[in-house]
Amino acid sequence: METDPEASAALDALYAPSSVAVVGASPDSWYASNTVDNLLEYGYDGDLYLVNPSREEAWGRPCYDSIRDVPTVVDLAVVSVPREYVVDVVGDAGDVGVPCALVISAGFGEADDEGERAEAALARTAREAGIRVVGPNCIGFASGRTGTVLTPTCSRAPAPGRIGLASQSGALAFATFFERGADADVDFAYVVSTGNEADLSVTDHVAYMADDPDVDVVCAYVEGVDDPRAFVETARAATRSGTPVLVAKIGRSEAGRAAAASHTGSITGADAVWDDALEQAGAQRVPDVPDLVERASVHAAFDPPAGDRVAVASTSGGLATLLADLCEDRGLSLPPLADETERALLEMDDLLTFGEMHNPADVRGYGADAIDEIADLLFADDYDAYLFAVGLSAVDERAGAIADDLVAVCDRADAPVVLLWTGRREP
Amino acid sequence: METDPEASAALDALYAPSSVAVVGASPDSWYASNTVDNLLEYGYDGDLYLVNPSREEAWGRPCYDSIRDVPTVVDLAVVSVPREYVVDVVGDAGDVGVPCALVISAGFGEADDEGERAEAALARTAREAGIRVVGPNCIGFASGRTGTVLTPTCSRAPAPGRIGLASQSGALAFATFFERGADADVDFAYVVSTGNEADLSVTDHVAYMADDPDVDVVCAYVEGVDDPRAFVETARAATRSGTPVLVAKIGRSEAGRAAAASHTGSITGADAVWDDALEQAGAQRVPDVPDLVERASVHAAFDPPAGDRVAVASTSGGLATLLADLCEDRGLSLPPLADETERALLEMDDLLTFGEMHNPADVRGYGADAIDEIADLLFADDYDAYLFAVGLSAVDERAGAIADDLVAVCDRADAPVVLLWTGRREP
Repeated sequence: METDPEASAALDALYAPSSVAVVGASPDSWYASNTVDNLLEYGYDGDLYLVNPSREEAWGRPCYDSIRDVPTVVDLAVVSVPREYVVDVVGDAGDVGVPCALVISAGFGEADDEGERAEAALARTAREAGIRVVGPNCIGFASGRTGTVLTPTCSRAPAPGRIGLASQSGALAFATFFERGADADVDFAYVVSTGNEADLSVTDHVAYMADDPDVDVVCAYVEGVDDPRAFVETARAATRSGTPVLVAKIGRSEAGRAAAASHTGSITGADAVWDDALEQAGAQRVPDVPDLVERASVHAAFDPPAGDRVAVASTSGGLATLLADLCEDRGLSLPPLADETERALLEMDDLLTFGEMHNPADVRGYGADAIDEIADLLFADDYDAYLFAVGLSAVDERAGAIADDLVAVCDRADAPVVLLWTGRREP
Repeated sequence: METDPEASAALDALYAPSSVAVVGASPDSWYASNTVDNLLEYGYDGDLYLVNPSREEAWGRPCYDSIRDVPTVVDLAVVSVPREYVVDVVGDAGDVGVPCALVISAGFGEADDEGERAEAALARTAREAGIRVVGPNCIGFASGRTGTVLTPTCSRAPAPGRIGLASQSGALAFATFFERGADADVDFAYVVSTGNEADLSVTDHVAYMADDPDVDVVCAYVEGVDDPRAFVETARAATRSGTPVLVAKIGRSEAGRAAAASHTGSITGADAVWDDALEQAGAQRVPDVPDLVERASVHAAFDPPAGDRVAVASTSGGLATLLADLCEDRGLSLPPLADETERALLEMDDLLTFGEMHNPADVRGYGADAIDEIADLLFADDYDAYLFAVGLSAVDERAGAIADDLVAVCDRADAPVVLLWTGRREP
């Protein structure tokens, strides 16, 4: 699947703009004022122009009456004006040569018949004027890679990550994925809200990010797409070229489909078909928000493992059992320990183990203090990934020492090492 | 299903002991010393006796050579001695009339042939001496109701809750369920680790807690049980009498079953049979730890709703779609809004909505500020439960005001109201 070169050029302009015009920039509009505030505060280092025919100046800067009056051809027009002006604004931007518009204004296909007509007019005008459009009814874009924040709903500067996220839900993209991710030190290269997709679709964003060397994993939060085949082909091309694609496809239920239709006007499609198509494309379908964030963070942290052979060591036998179940659910194998590894583990005085040692290895509570020795024994064998699970309150010196050991263990490994620490988190 | 009266009396002694003897009480043993420390620190208000033939005194208290020498017949003997002494200690306790022993010592059926023989001897001795046994190889018990902590692995005083938890995994019971629950203000009436179940089983604990008026929901974390029929019948009796039962049944996979066998010696059984049996018993099978904690906390907070008719209002359309999917997954219905309710919502200026309003209701970002008005409109209709979902960073004054509104809304409702707040959590 080739990426559309015109879409790609427009997305270059969106994802790393050297100049931005905010059309509708007004301190009185919640959307526009927060967008400008965030752009000024969170690290954008390009040029910024404000367009507002009702004002001479704002934020200590001149306001231009129209994007036609801005003294340069900006890379990106961010549009936050009442819906009746949107088509003209985008047409003007296209006429002067702006390659991309990010339309935050709502009231289009998701709203009523008039909005539907306006959305069709917007798509037509963009085509005629030679400008590509993200949105309308999208909540913006943020790049942790460059610190460019083009959304009103971001409460802090994004830290640089290697996860790309395209989301058909704007609120979830920023309030949930971005903010909850940041709370857990999971950061994004890009977060984009795709809105009603009058022009550019979630598929275009997935294709673009999959080609970006700064993105290790592409996530899509999808309600429905106009061209499911193109989406699946894009996912397939991405996974084949080594970029994992994680998809949360919602709107499975009848009520969910109805909700999606009134939300972004999208048709969600038969669910089982999506299951099959995504599996065949090598994409991972994930059930919900926390799962998407967790999996993406693991993909961003590691190169793909060479195979599915996992070694698990857990300080709790119950946790070992649970992890064995979860490994099987995910198609991972837990090959038995080599005889000499088992023997060596059993001979470790610290573990107080009797009789046998399996994979998953139940190394008991004492095993936490010997995790480096246990890890080196397991590392000597041929596993594709390692999981160390510790059940311990993270509130005392012993826990601190064990955490240090775990960090050192990760540094020594040739294969991905995942740590699971369960136990009291708040001191 | 009748609860065994003898088991019930023994569990009275365990769940609310007026006197406890810790056998093996030594400042040099991690298990025993932490158990005594916790008992003294976290609110136990009964009598405590220490038994240790190698010491005159410990913790400023006299040490008795044997439980036979303790000057009263205690309710509960907590046993933390090397495994070769356990059978005699429990026999002695039974001989003097102690009704219940909590055996923390390990090295029994989970360990080796000798341990298996010792476990059989323990069961036989207990029967002969007329004492009931929890464990061996269990990590103890804690009551948030009374503040009685009889485990070495608890890092803080339990707060009183109304959830009962019986867990075949000791580490998960305390390090994960109790501690992570407490981090999230989810508290337990009782947490009990059932260990190898030489005598009393997870089924006995479930039956006991289901009969306790201080328990609103019983949770079981189960690897396998000797008598699955009794477990399922107990669950059925509990749910029929109005106490929900949540079961995390692990050991689904072959690797999980092998891990469970080496952990507590339990045979996990065919998984699909468990699915069917639990469903027929009216118990809820839950997939993992976070799900068990979340669901239990909702059951503890509310009386069961009268039916399955749910109203959802979400500030994010994407979240509305996701919630509709999740409702359908759980067999909940989302009946359409009454015409006049829809009209009233559409007429609210704050919402900036167009055209139609459904259930789930997408009330957009502005809806968060009008949540009280929206709630009262929905409350006037006949739903069995309400869900308000807000996607907003919880870090500014506006968020504080909305949170206050939500709390007030909950107080006004006649039916359960669940709040979902997604967005930045850490300030």
